[in-house]
Amino acid sequence: MAETLQVPDHLTVANADFSRALAWIDGGVVPLAEARIPVRDLGLMYADMTYDVVHSWRGGFFRLDDHLDRFLASCAGLRLDPGMTRDALRRRLAELLRRSGLPDALVYFACTRGLAVPGTRDPARSRNAFFATVTPLVLRGQPEEMRRGLHATLPRDVARIPAESVNPVWKNSHWGDFIRATFAAKDSGHDVPVLLAADGAVAEAPGFNVVALVDGALVSPDRGVLEGISCRTMFEIARDLGIPARYGRLMPEELARAEEAFLTATSCGLFPVTRIDGRPVGAGVPGPVTTRLLNTYYARKNAGWHITPATSIPPPEETP
Amino acid sequence: MAETLQVPDHLTVANADFSRALAWIDGGVVPLAEARIPVRDLGLMYADMTYDVVHSWRGGFFRLDDHLDRFLASCAGLRLDPGMTRDALRRRLAELLRRSGLPDALVYFACTRGLAVPGTRDPARSRNAFFATVTPLVLRGQPEEMRRGLHATLPRDVARIPAESVNPVWKNSHWGDFIRATFAAKDSGHDVPVLLAADGAVAEAPGFNVVALVDGALVSPDRGVLEGISCRTMFEIARDLGIPARYGRLMPEELARAEEAFLTATSCGLFPVTRIDGRPVGAGVPGPVTTRLLNTYYARKNAGWHITPATSIPPPEETP
Repeated sequence: MAETLQVPDHLTVANADFSRALAWIDGGVVPLAEARIPVRDLGLMYADMTYDVVHSWRGGFFRLDDHLDRFLASCAGLRLDPGMTRDALRRRLAELLRRSGLPDALVYFACTRGLAVPGTRDPARSRNAFFATVTPLVLRGQPEEMRRGLHATLPRDVARIPAESVNPVWKNSHWGDFIRATFAAKDSGHDVPVLLAADGAVAEAPGFNVVALVDGALVSPDRGVLEGISCRTMFEIARDLGIPARYGRLMPEELARAEEAFLTATSCGLFPVTRIDGRPVGAGVPGPVTTRLLNTYYARKNAGWHITPATSIPPPEETP
Repeated sequence: MAETLQVPDHLTVANADFSRALAWIDGGVVPLAEARIPVRDLGLMYADMTYDVVHSWRGGFFRLDDHLDRFLASCAGLRLDPGMTRDALRRRLAELLRRSGLPDALVYFACTRGLAVPGTRDPARSRNAFFATVTPLVLRGQPEEMRRGLHATLPRDVARIPAESVNPVWKNSHWGDFIRATFAAKDSGHDVPVLLAADGAVAEAPGFNVVALVDGALVSPDRGVLEGISCRTMFEIARDLGIPARYGRLMPEELARAEEAFLTATSCGLFPVTRIDGRPVGAGVPGPVTTRLLNTYYARKNAGWHITPATSIPPPEETP
């Protein structure tokens, strides 16, 4: 008998305690609603920033070091300096999570270019800024949407920003293509767009990597996309379960005939895709491989896999 | 005898009174340094916003209605609602300028998506936000740099974000390509990068349209670029002076053999380009056409051309 998709039903907006949301900014902790940045920060004016998002599960960070690796690589690639060591960053995020008291949370952290020096547009002259926020972990969409699966569309009039313009490996806020495609998707009665690259291959969905089960093997695009940590997680689980998984070129025609498809992101692990442009994917319900991956993901997290308890991380060192 | 380039020497950082800088935000006027937006505004998180910048000259807005037209078109294109009528916007910007007491100023105004609704990424559900700032008008670079002209470079490893991804006609904050190219330009001893489109044609420089004088006619790229108001201004002046000017495809080879070249932007009108990738443009100094255009631009502005005195615009109506 087939496994049943075990959806984390408690991760709803109704259950979430947003009053616990906090931010670390300008050297102190404040309620999230009070966390603001200058309107002249180049992170706002010119999207000159990077960020990352790690989640906590039952009080422990999931793959914290992988997220720190990616964030620091993004900072280096974009020539941004968060102004603290990796260890200080780690301690800061753990302290923020502990202060919130939220067991299941999203911890977002960002480095922006900071204020421009008047009369110049030399980004090297700005003093970069860092902040972090912690908010309750909430499934995007509702649990019933996870059981039903997302209805995706492949827009043909919006292409993903190419790597030759903005390198997607360095996590960035350039979402104009995603937003335009999201409006178009909603207008046409779909839940989410899956963007193609200029060459016609499948690229990314907004904040999601795309994975398809084609001829019994999982495949996720390898170029022009963020190197998603949730996708990597699902591939690790797949290999342990004996399901082949590889990064490579994925064409819309392959996605259209996929046995199963899902999107991966930190906020959900994975989200099944059950229709693409009105046609069912497989049987039109979350498939057995998708189900096994998600159920194993939660079972492993519950057992502490890739988890770093916030309590195991020392408090920030006092700055002298 | 050739005209001398008349550089607005007073528009320096040293002369500027930044203590007069203000912002209109959250329904009130505050010193610019206090103007902040929430870190969870999607304008910051996902560059989901538009903006425009109009300048004032001796107390009057230059081409205010053209900037309002473009801003409202950008809002409509990006499905953003600034929450006020065109007339209210006009009054608000005029009031902000008057309050600053700055005769020569940049008035920046932006509409951001606002806060996300938790548990959804439907941009249509956010309440959009509007703010405006006024800062002293300062020449980018220094007056001596305007006399010398900019040294530009055409990077071959960064392409301008294509219109198929983010429509440049709707003024946006997607500057990742510009910033990456600016770092590379500075690293190699240049002042500014001029980006090419993916098809190899000249596109834009960061915040500038590109204009070349080729075989006696001005040409500026017509596709994949912002429809610059300063470029339009220079073309209007050129036509009045009997200099042919057209929008069209401009290839790097044409730019390389141009008699003259310049960049246009609100902050400067135009800025001469005198070297490209180490080779002089024309005689390697601001050329006669560039000089006539800039001098005429200032003479006309001094005479009130396209100027709307801030005092001629009524104060904002009280909201009931």
